[in-house]
Amino acid sequence: MEFTLGQIAALLGGKAEGDENQKVNRLDKIQEGGPGGISFLANEKYEPFLYETDSTAVIVSEDFKPIKPFKTTLIRVKDAYLGFTMLLEAYAQFTKASLVGVEEPSFFHSSSTIGENHYRGAFSYVGKNCQIGKNVKIHPQAYIGNGVKIGDGTIVHPGARICSDTQIGNNCEIFPGAVIGADGFGFAPQPDGTYKAIPQIGNVILEDNVSIGSNTTVDCATMGSTVIKKGAKIDNQVQIAHNVVIGENTVIAAQTGISGSTEIGKNCVIAGKAGIVGHIKIADHTTIGANTGISKSIKKSGQTLFGYMSMDVKDFLRSYTLFKNLDDLEKRIKELEKKG
Amino acid sequence: MEFTLGQIAALLGGKAEGDENQKVNRLDKIQEGGPGGISFLANEKYEPFLYETDSTAVIVSEDFKPIKPFKTTLIRVKDAYLGFTMLLEAYAQFTKASLVGVEEPSFFHSSSTIGENHYRGAFSYVGKNCQIGKNVKIHPQAYIGNGVKIGDGTIVHPGARICSDTQIGNNCEIFPGAVIGADGFGFAPQPDGTYKAIPQIGNVILEDNVSIGSNTTVDCATMGSTVIKKGAKIDNQVQIAHNVVIGENTVIAAQTGISGSTEIGKNCVIAGKAGIVGHIKIADHTTIGANTGISKSIKKSGQTLFGYMSMDVKDFLRSYTLFKNLDDLEKRIKELEKKG
Amino acid sequence: MEFTLGQIAALLGGKAEGDENQKVNRLDKIQEGGPGGISFLANEKYEPFLYETDSTAVIVSEDFKPIKPFKTTLIRVKDAYLGFTMLLEAYAQFTKASLVGVEEPSFFHSSSTIGENHYRGAFSYVGKNCQIGKNVKIHPQAYIGNGVKIGDGTIVHPGARICSDTQIGNNCEIFPGAVIGADGFGFAPQPDGTYKAIPQIGNVILEDNVSIGSNTTVDCATMGSTVIKKGAKIDNQVQIAHNVVIGENTVIAAQTGISGSTEIGKNCVIAGKAGIVGHIKIADHTTIGANTGISKSIKKSGQTLFGYMSMDVKDFLRSYTLFKNLDDLEKRIKELEKKG
Repeated sequence: MEFTLGQIAALLGGKAEGDENQKVNRLDKIQEGGPGGISFLANEKYEPFLYETDSTAVIVSEDFKPIKPFKTTLIRVKDAYLGFTMLLEAYAQFTKASLVGVEEPSFFHSSSTIGENHYRGAFSYVGKNCQIGKNVKIHPQAYIGNGVKIGDGTIVHPGARICSDTQIGNNCEIFPGAVIGADGFGFAPQPDGTYKAIPQIGNVILEDNVSIGSNTTVDCATMGSTVIKKGAKIDNQVQIAHNVVIGENTVIAAQTGISGSTEIGKNCVIAGKAGIVGHIKIADHTTIGANTGISKSIKKSGQTLFGYMSMDVKDFLRSYTLFKNLDDLEKRIKELEKKG
Repeated sequence: MEFTLGQIAALLGGKAEGDENQKVNRLDKIQEGGPGGISFLANEKYEPFLYETDSTAVIVSEDFKPIKPFKTTLIRVKDAYLGFTMLLEAYAQFTKASLVGVEEPSFFHSSSTIGENHYRGAFSYVGKNCQIGKNVKIHPQAYIGNGVKIGDGTIVHPGARICSDTQIGNNCEIFPGAVIGADGFGFAPQPDGTYKAIPQIGNVILEDNVSIGSNTTVDCATMGSTVIKKGAKIDNQVQIAHNVVIGENTVIAAQTGISGSTEIGKNCVIAGKAGIVGHIKIADHTTIGANTGISKSIKKSGQTLFGYMSMDVKDFLRSYTLFKNLDDLEKRIKELEKKG
Repeated sequence: MEFTLGQIAALLGGKAEGDENQKVNRLDKIQEGGPGGISFLANEKYEPFLYETDSTAVIVSEDFKPIKPFKTTLIRVKDAYLGFTMLLEAYAQFTKASLVGVEEPSFFHSSSTIGENHYRGAFSYVGKNCQIGKNVKIHPQAYIGNGVKIGDGTIVHPGARICSDTQIGNNCEIFPGAVIGADGFGFAPQPDGTYKAIPQIGNVILEDNVSIGSNTTVDCATMGSTVIKKGAKIDNQVQIAHNVVIGENTVIAAQTGISGSTEIGKNCVIAGKAGIVGHIKIADHTTIGANTGISKSIKKSGQTLFGYMSMDVKDFLRSYTLFKNLDDLEKRIKELEKKG
């Protein structure tokens, strides 16, 4: 799609300083911009690129004062970063809205229903007794098992797997290769040393506005539900075990693992590769550093934790600094022993 | 499906205390039970819920003595937990047994064979020269390459990938997105700094009763076989490299990684996020803690190991406690130095 | 396929000592060899197997001097290991070259193009406006979004997902379940505690000879490109976030994670389960140990780093040795304190 600078200025409530009829069809970084592209300048670090860019237009803030000549056309808006973000969103919305229809072959069981403006890609599968809302986009090769409920505006990307009885809210996004609602890891040890699978008959509930990253796994509950509350954002390759509860607006970065029946509070921030044991509770507004191991409940909200077996982040860093020089410490003890 | 309390009591060898003709169609947690559901009470911690539950029936042990009035119907059995587990299994068996037939389109090469009572879901793929047993369930979008052998009763879940020449035993379960038998990571460094792929011509063997979790990867051997022995249970997002051997009844939790050619003994328990280097041997009955790094062979069986570079778990915890207060230790040394 | 020992000797520029008309159809480990198989002996540790093997033939080095009788036929070449590798490669090339044609149903948008000698497996999907070179193999259930470019000789394995606008060079290999170019993890915090997705409009570029392991995820850039330069080899379950750059011939082992906008130099070796924070630079020829955390830029090239928060590997091991005996250290301080 192609827009004039006048259209874009109007969309952003700003003003184009130059020929409003010039057309752009692409969003560019200012340092990589070319003809037909539109960029933005929000951080003064990037200002030198403005004087050299070949972008057709650059979004700048109202009060920006250039100090050198330039070729591009400025579009002045109240907040350049926000303006660019609005453009990004308009672009994303347009792309999504235009994805409508059914590609064949696809599989859709006759007992299931789906609302208007949907997309179902080739080789997508929808099982029995599903209730799927409107504006839902089911990409190619996505799998939706039996008895699944999906709200309006949710996107299921290529090859994502939504297993039976999962319930998904409105405006969720499930990225490629994610597996939602497969069996949890539950085995009962037998007297002869073998293990017997404990049937996992619960499900997964994703509330509204939840995002699940590529190749992440969210196991169904043994009984009851594994729940990811509204607004939670989960990155790629995260493992969420059976009966876990993730609070509202909690953010979890890639490769973190959360063991069974643990409850994470709301508005927590968990960095990548963290590991959290099962059957504990993490208070609201907890921050957990990258690669941190959590083995006990966190009761006081608002803490920042870090370390192999987590501690307060400042305490950990103090200990780790000494750990790095443990050799020195040992020498000082030796010295003292000699003297003694 | 729906059963009367009388039918359930008969199945469990127990007795319903009340109207045997009431019907249930769902298994519920006692604290979340509703009409039409059946729950169990095995842990006295949950006894208060019995007096409030809306579940139609609750399975209790023979000797349970209620201390308050309640609305639900009790089904008395020898062991309430075991009784409920039997119900779960009956439910799971029924669900699995009823999955029979072929959904189209699906791909099944004419040179391959499959036994009776199978299910092949839409968009599933079976390549050339495969020999597949009876009661095998190949879910939608599952992939089975050329020359694969699969025993009776095995389930291949949606989107699992079984690459060429893999051999799978009876009653295995491969969860969604698992990849069995893709190339191992083998590259020969060249004089010019580039790498050349070493062809990986071996395969993977899964013996009977093996379970492989969602999005787990098990690489084929460079030559010979990567082997997972009978009864081993592997959780989600585990990485098992080429030529690894996993012993019988060994259990490995999520996000653990095992490097090439390592051999793990039988009846080991490996917690989540552990990392094990290549070319070592781990003795039978070894327990490895979460997030533990193992860099040397473990020769004595029955040990419990833990830590960033693994040690005996008690030693690690003692050292870690001092690490947490390393600052204090340093201060004590400083104090001594002043005195000296 | 089947070859005579004479044909194999000719291919390897060597000589068969025995009946050149014997046929082999399989590559075997010497310790597991059987009739119809060909093995190699490059490491003297395996010499005892030569005197017992049932392999039809064994490749040995020119100067090998047997010290006992044996049944197999020797094929003498300059370098036994290299000779066997040549055989492996010939086998792999043959297997790949013979995979040509289209299995139906498959989806290929009419606006896309693909070169000669291609394979497109059943249930594979190619979206709009793709430009795909010759000798490309798109396996069953693979997904290729809109506007993707793929060079000659690249292999996309079953169920790999190449999202829209990805650019892939020549002779790349993308293993099953890998996800290339899905959205990066970018969310802007809102005043009410919720998060808003930042549209990710960039792409992924894989240069020539790149290998991406099973279930690995490479996110598209927010703007611009996430780039994996030529010859880089990435193992299974690696996470590469938006706007990361991986240098030429860098090798990354399984379960490592690299956060957004980090640039890794060329010819680095990164072991399994390492974690690298965002927005840093790693110098060329850096070696990073297993499970190592990197939180700062590495400016000097050629270092070897290790540890929970990385240090020079020797320093870490010295500190860790003392950490293991921290209890002793504390006792020595206590002793000194008593004396003081």
